[in-house]
Amino acid sequence: MTPSSPEPTGAAGHAGHAGPADLVISGCTVLVHDDRGRIGFEQDAAVVVRGGVVDSVTTAAAGASVPAADRIDARGQVALPGLINCHTHSPMVALRGLAEDLPTEEWFNDVVWPVESNLTGRDVMLGARLACAEMIRAGVTTFADSYFHMDAVAEVVDRCGMRAQLGQAYFSSQGPEGPAASLDFALRRRGFAGGRITTALAPHAPYTVVDADLAATAELARDHGLPVHLHAAENRDQTDTSLARHGVTPIGVLERTGVLDTDVLIAHGTGITEDDLPLLARAGGRTAVATAPRGYLKFGWPGTTPVRALRDIGVPVGLATDGAASNNSLDVWESMALTSLIQKSTEGDPRWLTSRQALHHATVQSARAVGLGDSVGRIAPGWRADLILVDLTGPHTQPVHDLAATLVHSARSADVRTTIVDGRVLMRDRELLTVDVSEVVRELGERLPALTDRGHGRRIQQYDT
Amino acid sequence: MTPSSPEPTGAAGHAGHAGPADLVISGCTVLVHDDRGRIGFEQDAAVVVRGGVVDSVTTAAAGASVPAADRIDARGQVALPGLINCHTHSPMVALRGLAEDLPTEEWFNDVVWPVESNLTGRDVMLGARLACAEMIRAGVTTFADSYFHMDAVAEVVDRCGMRAQLGQAYFSSQGPEGPAASLDFALRRRGFAGGRITTALAPHAPYTVVDADLAATAELARDHGLPVHLHAAENRDQTDTSLARHGVTPIGVLERTGVLDTDVLIAHGTGITEDDLPLLARAGGRTAVATAPRGYLKFGWPGTTPVRALRDIGVPVGLATDGAASNNSLDVWESMALTSLIQKSTEGDPRWLTSRQALHHATVQSARAVGLGDSVGRIAPGWRADLILVDLTGPHTQPVHDLAATLVHSARSADVRTTIVDGRVLMRDRELLTVDVSEVVRELGERLPALTDRGHGRRIQQYDT
Repeated sequence: MTPSSPEPTGAAGHAGHAGPADLVISGCTVLVHDDRGRIGFEQDAAVVVRGGVVDSVTTAAAGASVPAADRIDARGQVALPGLINCHTHSPMVALRGLAEDLPTEEWFNDVVWPVESNLTGRDVMLGARLACAEMIRAGVTTFADSYFHMDAVAEVVDRCGMRAQLGQAYFSSQGPEGPAASLDFALRRRGFAGGRITTALAPHAPYTVVDADLAATAELARDHGLPVHLHAAENRDQTDTSLARHGVTPIGVLERTGVLDTDVLIAHGTGITEDDLPLLARAGGRTAVATAPRGYLKFGWPGTTPVRALRDIGVPVGLATDGAASNNSLDVWESMALTSLIQKSTEGDPRWLTSRQALHHATVQSARAVGLGDSVGRIAPGWRADLILVDLTGPHTQPVHDLAATLVHSARSADVRTTIVDGRVLMRDRELLTVDVSEVVRELGERLPALTDRGHGRRIQQYDT
Repeated sequence: MTPSSPEPTGAAGHAGHAGPADLVISGCTVLVHDDRGRIGFEQDAAVVVRGGVVDSVTTAAAGASVPAADRIDARGQVALPGLINCHTHSPMVALRGLAEDLPTEEWFNDVVWPVESNLTGRDVMLGARLACAEMIRAGVTTFADSYFHMDAVAEVVDRCGMRAQLGQAYFSSQGPEGPAASLDFALRRRGFAGGRITTALAPHAPYTVVDADLAATAELARDHGLPVHLHAAENRDQTDTSLARHGVTPIGVLERTGVLDTDVLIAHGTGITEDDLPLLARAGGRTAVATAPRGYLKFGWPGTTPVRALRDIGVPVGLATDGAASNNSLDVWESMALTSLIQKSTEGDPRWLTSRQALHHATVQSARAVGLGDSVGRIAPGWRADLILVDLTGPHTQPVHDLAATLVHSARSADVRTTIVDGRVLMRDRELLTVDVSEVVRELGERLPALTDRGHGRRIQQYDT
């Protein structure tokens, strides 16, 4: 169960560091994975953390005898790998509730893209701080973000203690500066924040980035060992338009531009067709899809991410929220429950996407989706100590006949009491330790009139697919 | 905005009682309805409560000068009418997570109905206490319950302070004792718990109750002025089976047996057909439907409650959770959000079922569905003081561009800080004041092995539709 390529600190920690542990969490049930990645639960257990890494998962009794600088009594709680938000635009929390009950085209053209023409680095910084506070409180320890002014997001991640895969988004309408800035960001910030930040190249989507730019990005990704994070086949309309205009689906565009030969994270994919599946199956890179079902429902899209078909061809599907301007929250816990429910409904099969499968998407598959399958997504020796403690003593989570079902279908993000990244406690007993929410809300509130002004008639991009 | 038939205490309270108010809640935003029932918000307001009734909704400044026995400073919070769970089986929380990922038929025949053959009044009492604790914490002030051993539920409602419409469920397989017990309960417990309990006759469903029993129940309902609460057209399979066996839909059965001439609350109705709509439109009684969309998704049913079609014929649709054995929670807040999302998705129309419409279902329509449209579901002078305070200071509910959207799509049931019924505070700052959860969980846990034993091979009923 040791990772194939543990990070140096982890290996050192696991090797048996002398002296007290940094943290011992004891008395909890621990979600573990067997060597095939299947979910299990260790009861009355303890997690020992050293050097930012899980040193051991042992019994509560054994944990009690380990000297430690800090201890958490977690009786009545379950330790899970921290949740991973595999696709978001964190600063868009500033626009939460601004564009309601609109079709996709009006949402982009009439509200979001006009407002984003006002965006400043300061807005992005404040939005990202608010978003990180929300995610830490919801048990999210890692997020994959594609947006603008991403240096501000990197600084926020550094300070708040989360882990993130960050990409500077670009449109072809920006000219050569867009992809250049995306590459520059990815190279400069890779490994920042004590290694907690990884980076990606982030072309926006095949409908906003031309083939030549996608091909150039794919080549840069391979040259520099960077992943690519983009939107593709978000909905069936996009697929139909792509077929009509270009004779290929959006996934076909990714294939012919070489993007499928990179390590690519595809957001949404509700417009993936059956004919796309062989392309994804034989992709030369590590391909994954992020699903954020709440927004698909809210926009009234006719389908959802084809999770079962992707499972059948070995493509991991990570959980996501998208930005809060469409999803209204960054609640990955809700995404986990909704993914299970909407998959059952879409397939017409109540036996599909069980709670254990949902937890597999939330842990191992989400970690693989963001390129961290060897370091996060499990609570096991040598893995990074990114974990959360969930309180199941509330009346809504009792009694427990099936712990996986309790976690997925009865528990809520508000049941997360404690959030830990790299062994550092970012929230303890619901108290945020690294973000001052009221100060962020105050300053963001002052900036909202300028940010949301649409009187100028500009927009950063036109949605016409 | 005074109700057409205020309850005596309410009228007295509203008339201007001398002496201090019982409770003044001040500094909050208050959700109000105009004279056409449309949602609005009064900012920086106060709610004055006397004799279990809302005496006035005034300004925070005016509220500050009202002498009061108790005061709640609710700055940063929103006062909403308490949520109403229009269809549940509250004691089934004891089975939460016991029957997972199963088709409807196996869920009933292999797990739920065998287990329910073990059910005792004590199990029901403990389940109802746990359920009431869960609902109070989730901001639910009223629930409509159809189950067995309902005297135990009535006693729990009396003690925990909630409001409820209760019905003793029956199958025709029980013989004449079933409907007799349902009537006996309805007549004995009507007006119990200081008037907080109303009662209904509760035949289980057209597929478990024969036409003669439905007709007799309809007649008794009319004779005694009682409503009827039952399942009908739960899914399309039931409708298809009914057409094949009886030549009419389940709604057609309700029509020909006279049930549609009573005040009837129909659970689910996802199998309601277009041909059923005229029958519902010309029903002689007050007809309403309860929607609990989470379970429909989880069972993989092909449709959902046709809310838009029901709106068009003037049938109110209330929000519900069903029992926790299928829904996994009694979280009506989640039902509100899911109703909006699933309606948008099913209709393929993002403009339909806006947040304000969702709040209308949660308040006025849900109150009408449980027969309390003249006394609860609004915060207005003369209405019962059933209300909740929702904290919007968390990072996931900031900033607020559209308060209705924040409430429906960003807030969660855990944001309810305070729950009040008839002016009595049942939860204050998340602390439950009328139920001891740990004691209930302990005793229920001891009883679960006997309750969940299926070795005997019995079941209370057979699902074969």
